[in-house]
Formats: sequence, C-alpha cells, structure tokens
Amino acid sequence: MKTLNVELGERAYPIYIGSGLLQRADLLTRHVSSAQVAVVTNDTVAPLYLDRVLAPFADRVVETVILPDGESYKTLDSAGRIFDALLGKRFSRNAVLIALGGGVIGDLGGFAAACYQRGIPFVQVPTTLLSQVDSSVGGKTGVNHPLGKNMIGAFYQPRCVLADTDTLATLPDRELSAGLAEVIKYGLIRDPEFFAWLESNMDALLARDADALAYAIERSCRNKAEVVAADEKETGERATLNLGHTFGHAIETGCGYGVYLHGEAVAIGMCQAADLSRRLGWLAAADVARIEALLRRAKLPTKPPENLATERYLELMAVDKKNVDGQVRLILLEQIGRATLPRGIGMTQLRATLDEYGKA
Amino acid sequence: MKTLNVELGERAYPIYIGSGLLQRADLLTRHVSSAQVAVVTNDTVAPLYLDRVLAPFADRVVETVILPDGESYKTLDSAGRIFDALLGKRFSRNAVLIALGGGVIGDLGGFAAACYQRGIPFVQVPTTLLSQVDSSVGGKTGVNHPLGKNMIGAFYQPRCVLADTDTLATLPDRELSAGLAEVIKYGLIRDPEFFAWLESNMDALLARDADALAYAIERSCRNKAEVVAADEKETGERATLNLGHTFGHAIETGCGYGVYLHGEAVAIGMCQAADLSRRLGWLAAADVARIEALLRRAKLPTKPPENLATERYLELMAVDKKNVDGQVRLILLEQIGRATLPRGIGMTQLRATLDEYGKA
Repeated sequence: MKTLNVELGERAYPIYIGSGLLQRADLLTRHVSSAQVAVVTNDTVAPLYLDRVLAPFADRVVETVILPDGESYKTLDSAGRIFDALLGKRFSRNAVLIALGGGVIGDLGGFAAACYQRGIPFVQVPTTLLSQVDSSVGGKTGVNHPLGKNMIGAFYQPRCVLADTDTLATLPDRELSAGLAEVIKYGLIRDPEFFAWLESNMDALLARDADALAYAIERSCRNKAEVVAADEKETGERATLNLGHTFGHAIETGCGYGVYLHGEAVAIGMCQAADLSRRLGWLAAADVARIEALLRRAKLPTKPPENLATERYLELMAVDKKNVDGQVRLILLEQIGRATLPRGIGMTQLRATLDEYGKA
Repeated sequence: MKTLNVELGERAYPIYIGSGLLQRADLLTRHVSSAQVAVVTNDTVAPLYLDRVLAPFADRVVETVILPDGESYKTLDSAGRIFDALLGKRFSRNAVLIALGGGVIGDLGGFAAACYQRGIPFVQVPTTLLSQVDSSVGGKTGVNHPLGKNMIGAFYQPRCVLADTDTLATLPDRELSAGLAEVIKYGLIRDPEFFAWLESNMDALLARDADALAYAIERSCRNKAEVVAADEKETGERATLNLGHTFGHAIETGCGYGVYLHGEAVAIGMCQAADLSRRLGWLAAADVARIEALLRRAKLPTKPPENLATERYLELMAVDKKNVDGQVRLILLEQIGRATLPRGIGMTQLRATLDEYGKA
C-alpha cells in the first residue's frame, strides 16, 4: 500500500492506494470513530462492495443511502435525499459519512457531508479510475444544475481517501478509458516524463495490469496533490487542472448529461485545447498529433460531436465557473508537460478551433 | 459609525454599526467591486430598503431575488431559486451576493453564496435587531429541514456586515423584543455588567432610543465576535452562544415554525435553562427571578407553550445539532454572566424543568 499525504495544514489528509484496502478494517476504522456511520453509494456499486465497507461497523448505527447510478442523479434533490435519511435517523454532527462509488457519489456525498449540520467528517472510497485519480483529490464537492455542471457545491476536504485498485476489476472498459483521460492530463499539464511513461505503458494499463495501474494512480494523485496543496482555492496553478474541462463541460451540457462520460468529454476538450494552442503558436503540430494518438490508444474520442455548433459552444462556455466577469479563460499548452492560463484569448482563433477542429 | 473587526485570519471582516449607513455608497462599493451583483431580500424589506442598496450599482449587472417573507421560506428550495436566478443571468464565481433582510435572508443568502459555484463573496445587510446582533456575526449560514432547524448549511464568512440602525425604525414591536432576547443572552453568558446595563436601559431600548440601541448592538456584536474569533467552528466557548437554543429549537419545531419568533422561543428556553441551572444547584432562585423579570420587561414570553409535553421535548431535543452521539448537551448558567456546558445532565432534573417550569 502506498500513502500520499495531501498537505493542507489542519485539513491535511492521507490517500491510501493499493490492492485489498477495502478488506483492511483498520484503515476505515482509523478515520471513522463515530457511533453513527452513513454510507452513500449507488445501485451499481452497492452489490459489489457495500458489504466490505460495512463489515467493520457492525457495532455502529449505520444508515445506507443507495442512489440510482448516473450523473443525472448528481442533483440538489439527491443531496436532499441524503439529508432526509440522516435526519430520519437523527444523525448528529459527529456522524461520519462514507462516499462509496465514482465521481458522482464522491462529489454528491462530499457536498452532503459539507452541508449536513454545517459539516460532518467524510471518507471517500472511490471505485472508478476517474474518481481515484481526480475527484477524490482536492476537496471539490458539488452537484449539477440544469444550467451547468458542478454549479452548486463546496470546497470540503475528506478525512481520508481509500483507493482500492481491486475495484477497477469490475469497471467497464469505457469508464477505464474515461479515467485514463484525466491520467493523461497530468502528463500534459506538468509531467512530461509521465506522459512519455504513458506512451510506453498504455497497453499494460488497458490490460489492467495491477502494477501499471497503481503506478499511474499514485503519480496522478501526487501531481494533483502537489497542485492542490500549493493552491487550495483555485486561483492560480490549480486552474491548470481544468485543461480540456471548459470545452468538455460545454460538450457534456450541450449534448445532455450522459451522452459522453466526463473523461470522454475532457479528452475531446484536451484535443481542442491542443488545437487552439497550436493556432496561437505555442504547440507544434507534431505534439498535437502525439496527444491525439495517445488519447486514441486509450480508446478515447478525439473528435467533437458534430451537432454542437460554435455559437452554442460559446454560449455554454460563458457560464463556466472558470470565467472572470464574462471573459472566457482557457487552460492551454505551451508544450507537452507545461500548461498556461493566458489572460485573453483571441476570439478568432477560438472560433477557428470550434469551427474546424475535428471536422476535417 | 462604529466599526468592529471580527478577527478570523484571512477570513476577518468588519461590522459597521450606525445610522444612515445604507445611504453611504462608499461602504457598499468598498466590498462589492464585481461587475455582477446579486441581491437577495424578501417582500417586506424590498419596498423599504432595496432602492438604497441598489443605488450605488447602477452601472453593474444586477439580479434581485425577492422571496416571500418568513421562516417557512428558509428552505433548500429557496436556495434553489437563488441558484436558478444567478445561473439564469450567467453570474460567474466573481459575482457578489448581498443579503438584505433579517436572519432568514442572511442565513439563506449566506448559504446560497457559500454553495454557488463553491462560494462567492457575500455582504450581509441585516435589517432586524436579531440579525444585527446575532445571525450576521459568526459565519453560520443555512436552511431548515422539516425535521429540524438549520440542519443544512455551511460555515461561511461575509466580506462585511452593514448594520444600519435606521432600519429598526420600521421593525414591528414583537420583532424588536425578539432581538432583545439575544441581546440579553450576551449579558447572561459572559457579560454581567452588560446585563445590569440592560436592566437600567430596557425602557430606552423599547422606546427605540438610537444611542441605546447602537450601544446594545455594538456590545452584543463585540461579545459574539470575541467568542467566534476564539472558536470559529463551535467546539468550545462558542457553544455557550446557544444558551436557551436547544429548548428554543424544540419549541419552534414542536409548535410549528412561525408560531413563535426565534427570539421568543429562545427567551423561553433561557428561562428553562435558568430553571434547570437552579435545580442543579448553580443558580440562585433570586437570579432566576431577575432573568425572568428582565425578559418580561423586554415584552418577551417566559412561559413554555402548554401543548408541548415533556416526551415530545426530549424527542425534539435529540435531533439538535448540539448533541454528541445522542447525548443531550445543554448550555446552563453558573451565575448571571457565566455560562457552562456540563458533560452530562441528570435526566431527573431535566424532566423536572420540562414538567414543572412555567406550569405553576
């Protein structure tokens, strides 16, 4: 087992990464000492892993909230269901909430924990590659709104994150690839050596080689933890974690939640960001091709949806959280392994990318 | 104008107290520099003060959310209405939210600001005595749930609080008294000199003497600010601010929101806490009488509602946030001006207070 510490002063917490962690009662009980334990999960994950998570808590008062699986349930209403359940059991502010599932459950469960009685401790048990490398690290919690993703939320840190690589065995291929999109992102924004490692090891990752996965998860989490520790509230470097996300969110919202997985939309968005970086004179055409090639090898889409017009993109991108007073701000690439956040982006080049990229 | 600084490190903020503050554009604009400004208020306050608050922002994009007046609108649904409005106008995370109104608006608006895009700055303009001395100080935001008050919320600090004593001119008598309950509370829990001052100046306060009110507001805020600065997350001394509140919340919930004003329920709760303190041997009977007398002079109720049985109280008190793993914890008084938080309270004496106090 590997342990990474996310350094955030009094809100610092460990990330445990490895095989068989859900069977280790000591890890969960170390961070869950309360008499009342809430578990939030979904109906896909519950039959697979809920028993393992509950095993150490036979002597506690336990409330389990099993939501339907899917991004469409990451809503204020679902948060309300969790509040109803916890209040129905009279859970105090000392109860601990365990979020068992992918990014939706982690974001939703974390938000519910952040708001329940103004904040109760929570433990994150991410069961997808995406949530293990991304949404479980950094304290971003929240729910979606019909007018935009993650528009309602809180910055709230877990007490610990428990990333058991065994849970990836049951992950559908498409979700594995979606997770790899975020893994590749860390190479792109700040770790060129890791990008090269991914080029050499993509086949092993797709074959779910345990060692390769553990290495990729740890290196991704370490990269993210370094960024988050340096910039908890997303004013500077942390913004680079959003490479591809402004385009990606527009794609997800424009096509309707559920058409693309988050990682798939981000993969396309990273291609668009790379294309725009090339148009602005930063990235060589060969590097754009290298990025697209790696994403394709990870079985990710690289072409934007055909039914999303440029004007609709611009409309959707205007409500993105990364904007400052209406100005579109995008993370771009100076080279593979170095991201940048330019102050103003030429609308001509942005439109050119939206009009032309992937259409050829 | 008096200025109090609530010392919370990087989240420190000023409280401005005085007459005519809403006419001072410089005060509002000093803390609201964004291009987008949201104002959350209610249909009682809007006709009286909304124009003054909006005046300095003629050149900004402004969105006003006017909710119906009343505690029954302090809900997750109302927060949803605010999110809808802000997203409808595509407000970015740099927008500033101004909460103009009493405690309900302050708590709700603050919670919406805390959650909108994971937190936007907000400015509190409390227009009732209660919110000026209590809910505007300390960073508690939130909404009610059918199973309990303030069960969903966040600790979130405003950028500033602007307490204009002129707004008290339009306050109904009953609400003025409700505010005085919290003012008296500060005397009871930590400021015996202030309690004596209140005994000497209650008539002036009821006559809305401007100087007396300003003094009482400032001294109350100073007391609360000192407590909050010492203990932001309510683990120790801050709990003493809840004197009378566990009883009071039970009364509010048990009788249905809206029957008693918050301050009225707290006034009764403080009497119950005083009675229980006497039964436990801490408070002299003469001090209980002195407390009841001052509350009566403030035109506050001191007798519990007749239709709330002891068992119902105990049931309602069990879901209160101040509990630790199911144990009832109550703030009691060692003397006038000194509160205490005993570890365990004898159920016999608690039942005796609930059975007997006020029934004679």
